Amino acid sequence: MPRRRTPEGVRRLGTCITFAMAIVTLLSDFGTKDGFPAAMKGVLLALAPGIQLVDVAHDIEPGDVEGGAWTLAQYWKLFPSGSVHLAVVDPGVGGRRKAIALAADGRYVIAPDNGLVTAVVQSAAAWRCVEIAEPQYMRPSPSATFHGRDIFAPAAAHLADGLALERLGPPVAEPILLAWVPPERSEGEVRGRIAHVDRFGNLITDIPGAWVDGSWRFWVAGSDVGALRRTYSDVEAGELLAVVGSAGTVEVAARQASAAERLGAARGVTVVGRRGA
Amino acid sequence: MPRRRTPEGVRRLGTCITFAMAIVTLLSDFGTKDGFPAAMKGVLLALAPGIQLVDVAHDIEPGDVEGGAWTLAQYWKLFPSGSVHLAVVDPGVGGRRKAIALAADGRYVIAPDNGLVTAVVQSAAAWRCVEIAEPQYMRPSPSATFHGRDIFAPAAAHLADGLALERLGPPVAEPILLAWVPPERSEGEVRGRIAHVDRFGNLITDIPGAWVDGSWRFWVAGSDVGALRRTYSDVEAGELLAVVGSAGTVEVAARQASAAERLGAARGVTVVGRRGA
Amino acid sequence: MPRRRTPEGVRRLGTCITFAMAIVTLLSDFGTKDGFPAAMKGVLLALAPGIQLVDVAHDIEPGDVEGGAWTLAQYWKLFPSGSVHLAVVDPGVGGRRKAIALAADGRYVIAPDNGLVTAVVQSAAAWRCVEIAEPQYMRPSPSATFHGRDIFAPAAAHLADGLALERLGPPVAEPILLAWVPPERSEGEVRGRIAHVDRFGNLITDIPGAWVDGSWRFWVAGSDVGALRRTYSDVEAGELLAVVGSAGTVEVAARQASAAERLGAARGVTVVGRRGA
Repeated sequence: MPRRRTPEGVRRLGTCITFAMAIVTLLSDFGTKDGFPAAMKGVLLALAPGIQLVDVAHDIEPGDVEGGAWTLAQYWKLFPSGSVHLAVVDPGVGGRRKAIALAADGRYVIAPDNGLVTAVVQSAAAWRCVEIAEPQYMRPSPSATFHGRDIFAPAAAHLADGLALERLGPPVAEPILLAWVPPERSEGEVRGRIAHVDRFGNLITDIPGAWVDGSWRFWVAGSDVGALRRTYSDVEAGELLAVVGSAGTVEVAARQASAAERLGAARGVTVVGRRGA
Repeated sequence: MPRRRTPEGVRRLGTCITFAMAIVTLLSDFGTKDGFPAAMKGVLLALAPGIQLVDVAHDIEPGDVEGGAWTLAQYWKLFPSGSVHLAVVDPGVGGRRKAIALAADGRYVIAPDNGLVTAVVQSAAAWRCVEIAEPQYMRPSPSATFHGRDIFAPAAAHLADGLALERLGPPVAEPILLAWVPPERSEGEVRGRIAHVDRFGNLITDIPGAWVDGSWRFWVAGSDVGALRRTYSDVEAGELLAVVGSAGTVEVAARQASAAERLGAARGVTVVGRRGA
Repeated sequence: MPRRRTPEGVRRLGTCITFAMAIVTLLSDFGTKDGFPAAMKGVLLALAPGIQLVDVAHDIEPGDVEGGAWTLAQYWKLFPSGSVHLAVVDPGVGGRRKAIALAADGRYVIAPDNGLVTAVVQSAAAWRCVEIAEPQYMRPSPSATFHGRDIFAPAAAHLADGLALERLGPPVAEPILLAWVPPERSEGEVRGRIAHVDRFGNLITDIPGAWVDGSWRFWVAGSDVGALRRTYSDVEAGELLAVVGSAGTVEVAARQASAAERLGAARGVTVVGRRGA
């Protein structure tokens, strides 16, 4: 991208300067109405003035670590190098699970050690991980029930402010990963599972789009959803179809309708594809 | 507004400088829990570091282009000149609908060409529109199902960064507009429709407030809601009333209650006003 | 915190400068889909370019002043000195209630004078309050139904821009406070109420954690919830427990379940604790 120009119509207010603020994104299952994300934001801005806060979502289903892990996979690498991703879906808060911080492909991820970082670890070219253990980088006297505010947010602020990852605590060789069964392929057949159901009721599988083409046909728990199409509008409104979705995997959808409702299908259900069927 | 002062209590951190970052607002029907808005934000910040992201809403009803068009009308002109408004309610993604970008009264609007920009075109003093067609301003190999991330967000980033509108693609003389029937007035009578139902159950019509005054009385689908009042608290709790609402049009409300529930009314229902009735 | 370093991996774009933008947080019961918060944000950024907007929540229950007051208490003091907290839960908009602005412990709070600032006033070491009355700091011809956009947001922008509080209007000696009955303690017994039910169904009381320890046992409306524990994972999944929560008060929870559902309890219900019971 070329040197920043002054966009058409923008008032110039004294000196105009290009710069990059450190970015901290926030993902949680806290909802917003109780002020829990706001408490994290206050802590972040008090410790690291000038950072740019970016809301991802706070409406992950309460305690749904797998849902949070899927969502984190959708954006973590799209943010610029140096970004800090704070992700808190933490049903085991206050218990024996560790708090961890990763540096992965130039970004940071802060999370409870409960599998939330599974997709990051599995898709990063390189990563290293530490436990957040040094009290000087936490709020004084952290609570036992809100590590988002008292441990995770301060760690994110310090990384955004330039602290070296290793200062937070000792290395963690093997962060906990979710036991995702990988999809399988054999001659003329692929077999995977619904990894995520999105807001539109689209059934997003873990079957790589690169494994299939228009000569393949798909079944969800035994229901035929037809041949692979290019996009939703290739079928009539209400009709089921399979496409390669924006996550790069096979997705089963219903045009302008919910495939999840139509098929009564949820996360974990088996999806099968056959060539020339 | 006078020259920026240092607000009471703000720590000064080295040099303090006034500046204006380019603003990009985001409106969609994506929800947040699947990470789709976050993916757009990552793309925006990677292409145009330092821009200011402003969430409008991601909970437009799935595919509700008319609802999105109404909401866009409420804020697009309130933002400073140079702001870029990204609006994605896109049931026809991947099909033959165009992706468009408008410059309107000093702001930009990026949207699918499906009527989402209706209110912008109808209320702007001046506008011009182009198709987003140049691959160099898209993500490489755009998906067929998520143009928000692959086409709209990059275009917004480039405009925020100062790209001239016309570089994005060829002019579009007539962007698609929704077939909104304008309200009618005759001697002593006005006739319009419910254009929007808000979170509080207020029924916001398209009847200009300037057409009426306290001598007018209103009916929603035949139900008398009384004379025009100044504000909600002019009636008792639970009572129906008509006011000139914050959109500048007649609004039918129930004090501390939902007029939509009370009247069983929805978007499209006819509202009639009569003078001296 | 030490001088800002350039975080690992961040591209430097010309001159990199540390600075602190004025922060404005937003809390409301507006929802987002109707564009009401966006209208406030447009007004804020048009009047005070360069401020940092921080969403707290827009899903406070419509008209729930007490819920908003509780949430505001969770974050207002965590933000850096100089921050402006805009809070609009305003069922009496357009009526005789005042619009007020407070300076409290170095932060500002802008709100309707309906009790929303109760916790701020009760927990601040020092505060002063004025009525927002000067038309020059409002939008021209403010509407009678959307003071968030026309009165509160402009006042917040002016304070963020450095305006002295007293310029907004005359002093208010006694802002309206909610009639919160304080918790009681006697030898071996404490008695309070459920002050808030959070997203997880946790029942957050007003009983200070400092009053009790592990030798205390709690009852919610007569139902025994057991002895005070350290954190959720001290009991089995689904079991009820009492802990000192992140607000510093006693909280009744169910591990990985909703205590509110289990006990059928809501805000206002009595909670009793007894030592050695």
